Parts: sequence; C-alpha cells; structure tokens
Amino acid sequence: MEAATTLDPDRSDVLGRLRDVSRERGATDVASRLADLKAWIAADLLEVEGVLAALDGPATPAFRSARHLLDLGGKRLRPLCVLVASRFGTPGPEARELAVAAELVHAATLLHDDVVDLGDKRRGAPAARVIYGNAASIFGGDWLLVEALGHVRRSGFPDLLDGALGVLREMLRAESFQLASRGRVDLTVDDYFFVARGKTASLFRWALVAGARAAGLSESDSARLGAYGEDLGVAFQVVDDVLDVSGDPRVVGKTMLSDLREGKVTYPLLLALERDGRLASVVAEAAREGDGELPEDVRALVARRVHETGAVEDARALARSLTERAESALGPLPDGRAKDALVAVAQTVASRKE
Amino acid sequence: MEAATTLDPDRSDVLGRLRDVSRERGATDVASRLADLKAWIAADLLEVEGVLAALDGPATPAFRSARHLLDLGGKRLRPLCVLVASRFGTPGPEARELAVAAELVHAATLLHDDVVDLGDKRRGAPAARVIYGNAASIFGGDWLLVEALGHVRRSGFPDLLDGALGVLREMLRAESFQLASRGRVDLTVDDYFFVARGKTASLFRWALVAGARAAGLSESDSARLGAYGEDLGVAFQVVDDVLDVSGDPRVVGKTMLSDLREGKVTYPLLLALERDGRLASVVAEAAREGDGELPEDVRALVARRVHETGAVEDARALARSLTERAESALGPLPDGRAKDALVAVAQTVASRKE
Repeated sequence: MEAATTLDPDRSDVLGRLRDVSRERGATDVASRLADLKAWIAADLLEVEGVLAALDGPATPAFRSARHLLDLGGKRLRPLCVLVASRFGTPGPEARELAVAAELVHAATLLHDDVVDLGDKRRGAPAARVIYGNAASIFGGDWLLVEALGHVRRSGFPDLLDGALGVLREMLRAESFQLASRGRVDLTVDDYFFVARGKTASLFRWALVAGARAAGLSESDSARLGAYGEDLGVAFQVVDDVLDVSGDPRVVGKTMLSDLREGKVTYPLLLALERDGRLASVVAEAAREGDGELPEDVRALVARRVHETGAVEDARALARSLTERAESALGPLPDGRAKDALVAVAQTVASRKE
Repeated sequence: MEAATTLDPDRSDVLGRLRDVSRERGATDVASRLADLKAWIAADLLEVEGVLAALDGPATPAFRSARHLLDLGGKRLRPLCVLVASRFGTPGPEARELAVAAELVHAATLLHDDVVDLGDKRRGAPAARVIYGNAASIFGGDWLLVEALGHVRRSGFPDLLDGALGVLREMLRAESFQLASRGRVDLTVDDYFFVARGKTASLFRWALVAGARAAGLSESDSARLGAYGEDLGVAFQVVDDVLDVSGDPRVVGKTMLSDLREGKVTYPLLLALERDGRLASVVAEAAREGDGELPEDVRALVARRVHETGAVEDARALARSLTERAESALGPLPDGRAKDALVAVAQTVASRKE
C-alpha cells in the first residue's frame, strides 16, 4: 500500500490518538473574533479580489470557464492565510501576489477536479464544465495554473516557487491516488490522511509559509506557521467530509453525499465502514452507480447509518483536535492580532457549516 | 476577430508573400547531413532520454498515462533544438535540463489535447486516454507540466522560466481559440498563423532561446536563434497539416484527416476552401460529424478536392519558404557544426513525411 509507506508513522499515530480526543470548546466569541479579523484584513482581501477580478484572457470558453469559477467567489481562505501570516511581520506587495497565487492554484485544481469527477455544482452554481464544457475547463484550469505560478514567480522568492511546484506534485499524487481508489471501501485511515494532506493541507501549509516569507520571518517561525497550516488543512478536509454527509445542501452548495457519488470515501464514511459491517455493500453499490444522482432511499440509508455509528461526531472531534494542535503550534510566535486571527480562523474551520 | 488584432500585420504580410514563393531545393544531401547531426549530438540526446525514462511517479493511471506517452518516443525535435542551439557556445548541464523541459511541455500539451480532441491515436499507438481514461490523462498532463517547470527552474535561468510561462500562455490562447473555432470553415490565414504560432512555434522559439542562454550566447544571437525557432515551428505545423491531408497514415501514425474530424481547419484545407467554393459545405458537414470516423467517401472527396486546388503543393512551398527564412536568420551566427545542424533540421522539417 503506497500511501502507508509515504506516511510518517509518528505523525499518523498522533493523528490516530487525536481522533479519540473530543474536548468540547465553547463556541463563545468565535463569531465576533471572525468579524474583527475580516475588518482588520479587509483592505488586503479587497486588493486580492481586485487582482483576481482583473485577470484577463481572450473571450473563449476556456478562459470564461476560469472566470466563471473565480467570479463565484468562495471563502478565499487560502489568500486569507497568506495575508494573516504576513502580518506577523511587515508585509510588502509580495504578500498580495502570493495570496492571489494561493487562490489561483486552488481554482485551477477545482476546474480539473470537476472534469475528473464529473461534478455538476460548485459554490452553489453550475460547475464551469456544465456551462462551457469539459474541454474548456481543462484549458481553463491549465491557464489558472500558469497564472498562479506567474504570480509566485513575480513575488521574487525562488524557494516559494519550488515549494509551489512541490505542492502541485503532492496534490497530483493525492488526486491520482484518489482517482485510482474510486469506489474502494477498504481504504485505511492512513490512506485517508495521505489524500487529505496531499490534496488540501499541502496548499494551506504553503499559504502560511508564503505569508511568513513575504513578511521576512525566520525559518523556524515560518515552519511553525507551516505546521499550523498543515493541521488546519487536514481539519478543513475532515469538516468538508462531515458537511458532505450531514450538511445542509442549500448552505454547502453541493448535493449531499456527492463525494460518495464520485466514489470517494470520506472520513465519517470511513469510520462508519469500520464500525458497521453491513455498510460496505451499500456503499460499494452506491459508488458503482457512477454519474447519476444517488437514489433518495440509498442516500437516507447511508446518512442514517453513518450517524448511528457516531462517525459524524468523531469526525468533528478530530477536526477540533487538529485545529487545537494547529493553534498550539503558534505558541512561540508573538502574541497580537495576527495570532488571534489565526486562532479565530482555526476555530471557524472546525465549526464551519458551509 | 480577436486573432487579427493580435497578429503583427507586417509579419503576416511577409507570411502571405512567402506563401507564393515556391523555390524548389534539391533533396541532395539532407539525409546524410541529418545522420551526421544525430551522431554528433547522440550522447546529449541519450542523456535526455535517460532523464525522461527516469521520471518517476506513483503507479496510478494518471502517472502511467504520462509514462505511456513519454515511452512512445517521438521525434524529440524540441530537445534537439535546445541541444544544438547550446552548441553555439559551451553548454553546461543546464542545457540538458532545458531540453528535458521542452519535451515535457510538449508531452503535457499532447495529453490534454488528446482529451480535448478525443484523439484515439498518438505516435502510432492508442492515445494514453484510450488506455487509462480521460481523467488520468488530465492529471497526467498536469504532472508533466509541473515536472517541466521544475526542470526549467533547476536550470537556474529565471528569465527562461518567465519565458516558459509565457509560452504556456500563448499555447493556451491558441488552443482555446482553436477549440472555440471548431468546425468553422470561415477562418482566415491570419487566424491560422495565430494558432500555429501559439500552439507550435512558441515552444520551438523558446527551445532555441533556451539552448542559446544555456551556452551563454549574447542577447542578439539568442534572438536570432529564437527567430529561427519561430519560423521552424510554423513550418513544422504547416507540414503537419500537409501530412494530415496527404500523408501515409501508417507512417504518420494517425488517421488521415483526423484534424478535420476534430473540427480543425488545416492550412491546405484553408487554402482549398478559398479556392473551391463547393468545398465549404462538405467540410462543414464533416467537421460537424464529431467523434466518429469520417466516412471513406467523404475523406476521399475532401482529399481529392484539396489536391486539385494545388493547396498541398502550396502548403509545402510555404513550409520551404519558412525554413529558408529560418536558415537566413542564422546568417550572422558563426559557421560550424551547430549552424550546419540547424540548417539540416530546417530542411528535414520542410521535407518530412512523418
């Protein structure tokens, strides 16, 4: 099993232990701290939006498919991470370039993923490929990737360019493993973390390190922010998985159990499969169905069984543990608004409903 | 018409005039000079093959699809261009990195193009997407692109990295214009050159400049080699088009008129459409057919009419004129084996049958 050999065993043990931890944290002031954060960083985020909005290309379906995705907005969490990390120091214009790059890498992978997964909805709207076709989304994704790397290059940090290429390799390893594992119901927790770290956490880690480098932080502080980003990213993916099985489709912006429809085993489903021996055949059958919508009764059955095993609560608990570990990685960094902001981001990621 | 505004009018006029030139050149010693060239550069080419063969990734369909394409070989013309250009000076190991990158960029675009065009054959074998699926070829192409840029980065020339990103942008502009123009029979010669320069010539130009930079040549000599590469690349595309309509499918390695099947108007077809008013409806119908094979009678009809208009001879003549202009761009460069080699390459491109 390739994933197992690639995983750092220490790390996966830690993750295994964390899975059992379920310290409840009061929802207290998360919302108000998040509002503070957004106000604090609003001007920077607006600049990033401006650059994204100004990205121009010929009026072909390929470029329109990319614009369609960018114009739908989204949480802009990766640029936010770059910008906040840069506030531990004195950020120059490079921070903005890198923030834009982080969003563009993310957008590029979404365009290609939607073609690969035949995804129909994205950010609550029809996926670009539904409007402009698969071919256009392939070239559109290529274009966003090239633009992303152009922004990294312009930022003037050769090591961040190497890092971005490394992240893309990690993402592709994870995505291609996931593609090859479509419909498999025998994936291990190690496999899961291999995919989550590669396809989601690697870019978060890069975003934090990029912000740190743009602000001239030391290597050790950059590494601390990177560690925060990695845990935040895995937590983000785990919560994404929770929302796939238990979120409100109107809020989440895509169909419930759409991961299952695409043959992907999510974290709660993986836990539930371990705990309920009767689930494997239902899930394997549902994943085999392929392109169409899952029948309502299958969806309801899977969702009920997953909930009955306690997998949803445990997945949420894992996400909280990961974000707590992310927060604690920030310990040695100076207290202040930047650190508060990252704590607020972590708590938001753990408790998000969309 | 977007393409028209992007074209340099002077340049397209030159190309227009060249089209009418048809100086015959004796096939004389092309073959023996090419053999000399290959012997001279064999060790370098072998090194490039070694690096390409050693490119490693996980054993997923995505990576296998990329390996499949690389293992099929091909003419390796772009790496050859890098290597020969570097022999005008004293090339270091960077030349090899850049030669590898040139082939990887080319391979990446082939994987994505075959998905976009639903191409079934490539280099005389089933296309990667036929064996491993479209999804695998999308990720496989992404991976090759990332590897390509990694090699450019490792070569240590930031301006060549910017150049490579610029080439990718040009390629995507051209490819996405071509995609948007599928099945159109009213394309102009300007449109044609916009596409040929973007999707083919830009990478040849980069390959020559990359070799020049790796060998420490002056900016003006690099520009001369770049001009050679640009004309060589357009000529290469024109001959590719000629082979699509008049080549031996067993030698060319793909079905005759496969460009037409994919809705692409080639140069000989474009000329023939200008000259034979009855052709437009047949071609439009054939391009509309889409995915399936063209019926044998339609294929024969189109091929016969294209030949009757003299379009094939004129396309070959244009290719010769372009390669002659390419050769003359080399004038101020020092005489020697490198220059002889590029002249041999140009003559081979103009007269190639596969």
